[in-house]
Amino acid sequence: MTVKVAINGYGTIGKRVADAVAGQPDMKVVGVTKNRPSFEARRALELKFPLYGATDKGVEALRKAGLPVAGGLKELLAECDVVVDCAPEDLGAENLKAYRERKVKAVFQGGEEHEAIGWSFNATANYKESLGRDFVRVVSCNTTGLIRTLYPLHAMGAVEDIYAVMVRRAVDPNDSKKGPINAIEPVLKIPSHHGPDVASVVTGLPIHTMAVKVPTTLMHLHAVVVRLKRPMSDGEVAELWSRQPRVLTLWGSDGFASTAQVMEWARDQRRARGDLYETVLWGDGFKVEGRTLYYYQAIHQESDVVPENVDCIRAMMRVTEDGPRSIEITDKAMGILRPGERPSLTARV
Amino acid sequence: MTVKVAINGYGTIGKRVADAVAGQPDMKVVGVTKNRPSFEARRALELKFPLYGATDKGVEALRKAGLPVAGGLKELLAECDVVVDCAPEDLGAENLKAYRERKVKAVFQGGEEHEAIGWSFNATANYKESLGRDFVRVVSCNTTGLIRTLYPLHAMGAVEDIYAVMVRRAVDPNDSKKGPINAIEPVLKIPSHHGPDVASVVTGLPIHTMAVKVPTTLMHLHAVVVRLKRPMSDGEVAELWSRQPRVLTLWGSDGFASTAQVMEWARDQRRARGDLYETVLWGDGFKVEGRTLYYYQAIHQESDVVPENVDCIRAMMRVTEDGPRSIEITDKAMGILRPGERPSLTARV
Amino acid sequence: MTVKVAINGYGTIGKRVADAVAGQPDMKVVGVTKNRPSFEARRALELKFPLYGATDKGVEALRKAGLPVAGGLKELLAECDVVVDCAPEDLGAENLKAYRERKVKAVFQGGEEHEAIGWSFNATANYKESLGRDFVRVVSCNTTGLIRTLYPLHAMGAVEDIYAVMVRRAVDPNDSKKGPINAIEPVLKIPSHHGPDVASVVTGLPIHTMAVKVPTTLMHLHAVVVRLKRPMSDGEVAELWSRQPRVLTLWGSDGFASTAQVMEWARDQRRARGDLYETVLWGDGFKVEGRTLYYYQAIHQESDVVPENVDCIRAMMRVTEDGPRSIEITDKAMGILRPGERPSLTARV
Amino acid sequence: MTVKVAINGYGTIGKRVADAVAGQPDMKVVGVTKNRPSFEARRALELKFPLYGATDKGVEALRKAGLPVAGGLKELLAECDVVVDCAPEDLGAENLKAYRERKVKAVFQGGEEHEAIGWSFNATANYKESLGRDFVRVVSCNTTGLIRTLYPLHAMGAVEDIYAVMVRRAVDPNDSKKGPINAIEPVLKIPSHHGPDVASVVTGLPIHTMAVKVPTTLMHLHAVVVRLKRPMSDGEVAELWSRQPRVLTLWGSDGFASTAQVMEWARDQRRARGDLYETVLWGDGFKVEGRTLYYYQAIHQESDVVPENVDCIRAMMRVTEDGPRSIEITDKAMGILRPGERPSLTARV
Repeated sequence: MTVKVAINGYGTIGKRVADAVAGQPDMKVVGVTKNRPSFEARRALELKFPLYGATDKGVEALRKAGLPVAGGLKELLAECDVVVDCAPEDLGAENLKAYRERKVKAVFQGGEEHEAIGWSFNATANYKESLGRDFVRVVSCNTTGLIRTLYPLHAMGAVEDIYAVMVRRAVDPNDSKKGPINAIEPVLKIPSHHGPDVASVVTGLPIHTMAVKVPTTLMHLHAVVVRLKRPMSDGEVAELWSRQPRVLTLWGSDGFASTAQVMEWARDQRRARGDLYETVLWGDGFKVEGRTLYYYQAIHQESDVVPENVDCIRAMMRVTEDGPRSIEITDKAMGILRPGERPSLTARV
Repeated sequence: MTVKVAINGYGTIGKRVADAVAGQPDMKVVGVTKNRPSFEARRALELKFPLYGATDKGVEALRKAGLPVAGGLKELLAECDVVVDCAPEDLGAENLKAYRERKVKAVFQGGEEHEAIGWSFNATANYKESLGRDFVRVVSCNTTGLIRTLYPLHAMGAVEDIYAVMVRRAVDPNDSKKGPINAIEPVLKIPSHHGPDVASVVTGLPIHTMAVKVPTTLMHLHAVVVRLKRPMSDGEVAELWSRQPRVLTLWGSDGFASTAQVMEWARDQRRARGDLYETVLWGDGFKVEGRTLYYYQAIHQESDVVPENVDCIRAMMRVTEDGPRSIEITDKAMGILRPGERPSLTARV
Repeated sequence: MTVKVAINGYGTIGKRVADAVAGQPDMKVVGVTKNRPSFEARRALELKFPLYGATDKGVEALRKAGLPVAGGLKELLAECDVVVDCAPEDLGAENLKAYRERKVKAVFQGGEEHEAIGWSFNATANYKESLGRDFVRVVSCNTTGLIRTLYPLHAMGAVEDIYAVMVRRAVDPNDSKKGPINAIEPVLKIPSHHGPDVASVVTGLPIHTMAVKVPTTLMHLHAVVVRLKRPMSDGEVAELWSRQPRVLTLWGSDGFASTAQVMEWARDQRRARGDLYETVLWGDGFKVEGRTLYYYQAIHQESDVVPENVDCIRAMMRVTEDGPRSIEITDKAMGILRPGERPSLTARV
Repeated sequence: MTVKVAINGYGTIGKRVADAVAGQPDMKVVGVTKNRPSFEARRALELKFPLYGATDKGVEALRKAGLPVAGGLKELLAECDVVVDCAPEDLGAENLKAYRERKVKAVFQGGEEHEAIGWSFNATANYKESLGRDFVRVVSCNTTGLIRTLYPLHAMGAVEDIYAVMVRRAVDPNDSKKGPINAIEPVLKIPSHHGPDVASVVTGLPIHTMAVKVPTTLMHLHAVVVRLKRPMSDGEVAELWSRQPRVLTLWGSDGFASTAQVMEWARDQRRARGDLYETVLWGDGFKVEGRTLYYYQAIHQESDVVPENVDCIRAMMRVTEDGPRSIEITDKAMGILRPGERPSLTARV
């Protein structure tokens, strides 16, 4: 079985999901949409992705620029089993109506509200519960990153309370319009939306979040405090994380002083676009003191949800009912290091 | 009585303390030291502060550049009752020997270790206990900022546990050498030194801190979580803070979206250098949920310790034994808004 | 005679012009306009500037927030001899109709088109030609800065051709919305508008400009190449500039490595908001090679046009017909260093 | 013939040259040096590059960290035909003695002085003159970028004078130590070293340069003014550039507003590390006015010299005596778009 996937919105996330899907053994990309004849639209064509307009106006704009357009959204939906909606924030909920009408399953991104879509997804936490669903939302990059390190602790019943502060990159590297250039902006709404968003996947996880925006484009960085139900050792926590998919531990003592070196490492890995799909922990930047666990983690906002989108498609299409198996297929295809292939959290310093 | 004050190190903090001391009714500046003929040395002379070399080499360098030098550190110490040591980090402990030898009282900055100096100071928390002491350290900008908002809660017995994440400016605005330009750097040592530093003034305060460095020069921003011993209301906390000296509440709804607007407000106040001596809270960016209090605060790293230095001098010289009275004198002289003159935390939105 | 001045638009430029006007011996501020109850509106009131709404909607918004509003623009125009229009870009041309109708003279800012206003002003270059005019535009910060150093060379007939590259700050320090955070943006239109804009004041000046936007908020920096009609010496050029008003020379060898130290110097000067009204040259960063002159200059975009606005008012109101005399009055009131009070361009290194 | 290449210094440039050499049909990497057991040393091993210490101390440090070390520099030099010296600035001249002693040819980078090495290289400008030489310096990223667009104009005798302002990124993306964070720093030495550096390859090119450092990590951007000996048309210049190797034209109208989008395009190309080896021009950001040509170009400082290093090896080893042929081989192996494969400078807008 080869799942036919459409990408509605070939931007930062959409172009990455397209590449990831194209690299899977059991999926293919049947088309992508774009509304303006930008360099990204031209790139889609170079990569042989059929190009569609997302709207009538988009079709016209692309045609006017001389680009070969295969049709509009309606035509694209007729070609696919599932559409991955990577439209700008809050448009997805609008699009849902069109998908429902055309009877096409749809994956949405974290910019949409949980309530608007009805179900939220993370490959590790609720693959099984997501099998066969029609409309599913892959949670945002920050939420995905939090779930990856917190869910295993929660699953073993160790978590009493969580406080997390997200230090957020302000914009992606390809955006030169927005700032701030030299300021820190607190998200005044307390708690920030990230906590409830985690709970949309992991019911009952007692997490409280605050967030600030800072002048960088590379990664988000989280400072997390977990109050445990019982004392644990550093080694116990390290061992737990070393077995999780998509959790990678790097070391300050190896030169990882900041997100700059983390992304340099990613660029050296020869993955597409220098992306980093894993949640990154610091092996020498976490600590358990009695019943309190402190750690930092870094999130590549452009790409960490990409493998989750792939697994989400598999769950919705019931390609396999085995979540860990789906993760394994996805990760191998994308060059994500598997537990065992990674520098061990327990081995260094 | 007019206390004769020397400033050893006329840099970011030193030049501000010099101005603040010069503006007090009961103190005067008898000299400042510098080691290079920079624009700051020239400015000290324009302001009629007698210029000394901090070292023999410094005396020579200043003379060679044609600047009128009144002498070296030895000569300066002979002129003063108390020296405020604003030397680069860790040099202060070295200087202490010279001060002791010359029998001159000395104020040190937060870059020094508590252990090296023996006593740490904050005007609100331990003025009385600091009376008459010979060597006292004014804690760092972040520690000062934390004490101002946490001490009153602690003093009423309300605090069970505190978790604070410091999002730190990387360098001061006058530094163009250091970065990072586009990265976030976690302080991997957990907990960061800020927690123990608070405890050096407020014994037994159960505070746990983490810190990250971000590419901005304006201010530090703290995200603080306080677990209370009993439920409190937003109004109760707001009221408590509204009575504290050097704690200022601004409102997102008035346009304070980030540290950029906070510093713009400070520039508009016509204080020296556009400085902001108060710890800044957001009136619409704090919240109590049951027994948990969340808040943001912003710290102007260049100036918030300056009034504390002034009070520290008064305590050490026993100019007055009344801490609140010293704070009042200092604040009036520096143009710091007193409780009652400030926009109230309880009044808006 | 005391000129009654209104400020229409109390923002970055407006609040500075208000302060500058308030500090002059022959002018006073009769009111300022604002449309939102931001912290700047509140500050205007603290400074005892009567507050008006710029529009009916603005009047309503201010009233709703409980601020005492003296009226709308119509009422304000009835109170003044001249209005300084500091409205957002391109709104000025629209406002001109209202000013004409009310028979009020008006000063506009450089964001307006020369053609829309009809006359452009710089105090050094065309004060006399501006006497008694009704509608005058003070050219932008970059244009003002260029005229100050180029006009004296042009006036002595020395200029054959000028090539200037403006390296522009992207936003002002109080703006946390716009970027870029980590990119350089060329102004693709060649030549940029700055060249023609200089020529709107200094007819026939053969200047060609290009511009790039960079991630900083402090100052603009210009790299200028002047092809001279005859060889000159470094000393000759230095001497010429040392006699110009509002041209200040600082030295790399005194620690001025970048715009960061330049603005630190300004903050140390105790002028309002740490502003820097002068065009800054580097005494050890310019050079004449045969018939080619190379130099850098830095421009404080928030404030260098402020004294020009004051002179412009004097010229339009014929307070004095003597341009240099107006400049002298303005500069003394604002604390701007006069030739002779400044570090000399010929003396150092 | 397979040239055996050693890389002395596996850092920003070294690791890229290693990958480029490894991808050529006529070369191989016999080893790389490193002095610290950083993540880059570990990456070299993952890529199967034999790892050597650059110094005795380096050998020891690597061994101590448990990394398999093949030996020191001496051992590495015994294995190779040519060494590419990518040591930190100014160390190369020191290393030259060791290379001479061991009778190994050596390529140096632009951080070294021309005089210290004796010959400087650019593939387009002087491949033939570099044949068989023992010690050759590949000029710096900025100089390489300038030569690519200026040499063809010079070769046709069209250039009278050139003024270029380099707006330089302050540090590479993997450096989180250095700034400035929020300032512009002029290179006070006039003219900057870039002009003479161009002349070290293209004798007699009349180029005058100034430079400023700005807070970005992505690319350098040049604003160039060329005074021509005769009038040319936009089309004539565009056509000339469209035939040059390693010169790429992108369009503001396709979304390339800044260096941010340029590097995004590069990341989308799937080249190693998201690198961009070409000099980038803006098709709608250049202009000829009479005898004056204005243009912007962007330079990827991390990678534009990498293909030049490869060609330099071929010239020195006389693998081929045909420069254009070497360029073609290099470019095909590295995925660099050839003239004809590129968006044409004459076709759009």
